[in-house]
Amino acid sequence: MSKVITPRDTDYSQWYNDIILKAGLADYSAVRGCMVIKPYGFALWEHMRDQLDRMFKETGHQNAYFPLFIPKSFLSKEAAHVEGFAKECAVVTHYRLKNDPEGTGIIVDPEAKLEEELIVRPTSETIIWNTYKTWIQSYRDLPVKVNQWCNVVRWEMRTRLFLRTTEFLWQEGHTAHATSEEAIDETVQMLNVYAQFAEEWMALPVVKGVKSANERFAGAVDTYCIEAMMQDGKALQAGTSHFLGQNFAKAFEVQFADKQNKLDYVWATSWGVSTRLLGALVMAHSDDDGLVLPPKLAPIQVVIIPIFREASQKKIIDEKVKEFCADFKAREIRVVYDEDDSNRPGWKFAEYELKGVPVRIAVGARDLENSSVEVARRDTKEKMSVSVEGLADTIALLLSHIQENIYQKAMAYRDSHITRADTWEEFVDILETKGGFVSAHWDGTSETEDQIKELTKATIRCIPLNNPVEEGKCILTGKKSTERVLFARAY
Amino acid sequence: MSKVITPRDTDYSQWYNDIILKAGLADYSAVRGCMVIKPYGFALWEHMRDQLDRMFKETGHQNAYFPLFIPKSFLSKEAAHVEGFAKECAVVTHYRLKNDPEGTGIIVDPEAKLEEELIVRPTSETIIWNTYKTWIQSYRDLPVKVNQWCNVVRWEMRTRLFLRTTEFLWQEGHTAHATSEEAIDETVQMLNVYAQFAEEWMALPVVKGVKSANERFAGAVDTYCIEAMMQDGKALQAGTSHFLGQNFAKAFEVQFADKQNKLDYVWATSWGVSTRLLGALVMAHSDDDGLVLPPKLAPIQVVIIPIFREASQKKIIDEKVKEFCADFKAREIRVVYDEDDSNRPGWKFAEYELKGVPVRIAVGARDLENSSVEVARRDTKEKMSVSVEGLADTIALLLSHIQENIYQKAMAYRDSHITRADTWEEFVDILETKGGFVSAHWDGTSETEDQIKELTKATIRCIPLNNPVEEGKCILTGKKSTERVLFARAY
Repeated sequence: MSKVITPRDTDYSQWYNDIILKAGLADYSAVRGCMVIKPYGFALWEHMRDQLDRMFKETGHQNAYFPLFIPKSFLSKEAAHVEGFAKECAVVTHYRLKNDPEGTGIIVDPEAKLEEELIVRPTSETIIWNTYKTWIQSYRDLPVKVNQWCNVVRWEMRTRLFLRTTEFLWQEGHTAHATSEEAIDETVQMLNVYAQFAEEWMALPVVKGVKSANERFAGAVDTYCIEAMMQDGKALQAGTSHFLGQNFAKAFEVQFADKQNKLDYVWATSWGVSTRLLGALVMAHSDDDGLVLPPKLAPIQVVIIPIFREASQKKIIDEKVKEFCADFKAREIRVVYDEDDSNRPGWKFAEYELKGVPVRIAVGARDLENSSVEVARRDTKEKMSVSVEGLADTIALLLSHIQENIYQKAMAYRDSHITRADTWEEFVDILETKGGFVSAHWDGTSETEDQIKELTKATIRCIPLNNPVEEGKCILTGKKSTERVLFARAY
Repeated sequence: MSKVITPRDTDYSQWYNDIILKAGLADYSAVRGCMVIKPYGFALWEHMRDQLDRMFKETGHQNAYFPLFIPKSFLSKEAAHVEGFAKECAVVTHYRLKNDPEGTGIIVDPEAKLEEELIVRPTSETIIWNTYKTWIQSYRDLPVKVNQWCNVVRWEMRTRLFLRTTEFLWQEGHTAHATSEEAIDETVQMLNVYAQFAEEWMALPVVKGVKSANERFAGAVDTYCIEAMMQDGKALQAGTSHFLGQNFAKAFEVQFADKQNKLDYVWATSWGVSTRLLGALVMAHSDDDGLVLPPKLAPIQVVIIPIFREASQKKIIDEKVKEFCADFKAREIRVVYDEDDSNRPGWKFAEYELKGVPVRIAVGARDLENSSVEVARRDTKEKMSVSVEGLADTIALLLSHIQENIYQKAMAYRDSHITRADTWEEFVDILETKGGFVSAHWDGTSETEDQIKELTKATIRCIPLNNPVEEGKCILTGKKSTERVLFARAY
């Protein structure tokens, strides 16, 4: 079977799909816009999920689980929210099938129609705030800091593996607070958790910022986000954290008595990241030979491949590899010894490169006579002869170097793709030729943002946090502006 | 707020609901038959899930994720399967909402009707076997050993917290094999994994057996199960493992080429346990003061409560408790120090009993002067004075004693509730008075089983594995029988 990947420069989009399908991360499914996450892709997601979950728990959050279905009337209670989600909802209208009396097979039983339709959750603010109403009466019940890991459904017209699928997996945190300040602190704290996760674990540098009104979450007062840069110069929103003000508390009548026994509406946040991060991981680091995975998240960090001609050599190799594996496991290095004899070493080399395994160790009988093995890095493709003495230590260090190198490489690309534009011509030219983020002045209005999007397909990705004040003129209208914002074409 | 629990003997069903609601495991939701799993209940589920997941991985399984939605036509491909599930399906018929032009609010957009309706998965055999078709061509692709953790929906008419809810969380393993023998071995292996988990982790003794045809999974050749006994003498099916033969491979045309290049249909298994296990855990061990949790699964294994009058005493206690907690954590004992001063010690004692925390340690200033603390067991309610020397070791040992004691207690109850019946009168009398499992002869026909169910509400829970051969006569019809089976009324 051919596992040739379309080169990135030939067709970026096909290159991306090829990697996902051929490295065994995911598959298309029989259900429109839904994908199957295959074991290798899911193992990667498990590592991401487990680390995020640890970070959520360290910041005082607990997991819970709320219903998949949302009564239609709930969705309508927050005006901006329903406006944002109504057009992409999967709707359950019936609860039974039956045999067609006319013999055409199984049909929906028209007598089993629901009195009120149920929406498959596109996000859970409404059902959760309807629940919080029963949990929260007094300031003593606050804060509530809950997260859930679940599936959500948004009926997208154009889908793309991981980046935009009808169903996806995510986590959604929903917190309730007594004051606006505390809720804003929580929003920012979770943005920082996401940024730290992206940078330290995914090796993905991100810009932290705030969305413009156009790009804000439906129902939020402010949406904070982390924005990453892909290798084709397009931006990707990797996570969002929303300050919801009292919007949902008002929609669902959630009030609390403060210490003076005065009633007030509760302050809210919500924040989420999804399997979309897997798409970002693929796009940010991979090359024409396949995936490049940061060691901290790689399901397999090290693969060992035996090189031999005779059974007697294999036996010597096996014994030595057994020692290596024990040492690696003691250091919690995830290692696989691939001694499957139905594939040749060359085939295996290509296969593990495709799968993005950070380190490959070829153990040959001759090398062992010299007490060495051949170590290859996936990120730089360097090969080196390494002593078997202290091999686990050497590899542990190498894995941390690879993690750092992948991050630095992505950072260098990202930094070289933030370009200032001071005229409309420059602005358009950068978008058309170089891509990346364009740092430019904007007059602050939705109309101008809409117009720029219409003309260039670029949107405001974010207004960076701690943005320096700078006098300037809007790139399009020439009106006064006090700061630059980041524009880009985006996924 | 009153947290009084209805006594078990007064109203078993209300006792069960009271514990779940008042211990904070779950809540009813606004969606019919769906529940909210609250943080404490979800933490319990996380411990169960994580341990099961480890056991699945140790037996060579990998996790993956398949779509929530199943095209209606897929469900119909296996005749027995659709017959079993058609009557309880949530059906998605539309993918958009819109503003009613007549101004009544948000309505389902009639123009956004799906060409083919989608079923919210009640179980995933069909969508998974449709996928396996593309994964499996040759014997080299086998076995496939995949599991998924997900939510499923079955539109139950009568629901009950954890035991029977419209939506529930579960895992479903789906494996594919080259031979019937290998598939049967897998089915039995996973039954044993479930039994081991129930007994060693949930402290829940189970009977392993095979279902009669009436109780078999829709689409299975054989359904293996573990059956547990609750404190009201009713049985509860705690997990099932199905040998599916070639039924789904035939329905979805999944064939493989064997070593001789001959095509054959693939052999299948599926197996699952769900959040229903949380209901079993509550029902099997709890008492009139609340939950009793086996230490291995308890989110909090030890709670420490300070007893003092003056701030100076509290300071001494704090210092000592800090040491205890460090020692406990070093031994991976999950400990909480509850120094919240808004509640009195007596209130806390009751609260943690309600929550089933296995060990409570009261640390008083006076006790400390004598280098001792007061330790209370949740299972037996015993209190004892324990030396602070080597406290962590003492507690670790105590936790394992509690785990064992809870198991032995449940085992004694279960064993004393397996009763032989040789006449119809005995059979009915046992069911009416004592309850529990009734071990009796049966003529092996579905008709007789139906009739017995009709007359007594008892069903055949299982034909135990390694059942001794014994000549006898069917309890109802008097026809010849060669073995006893276990009847019971069940959840």
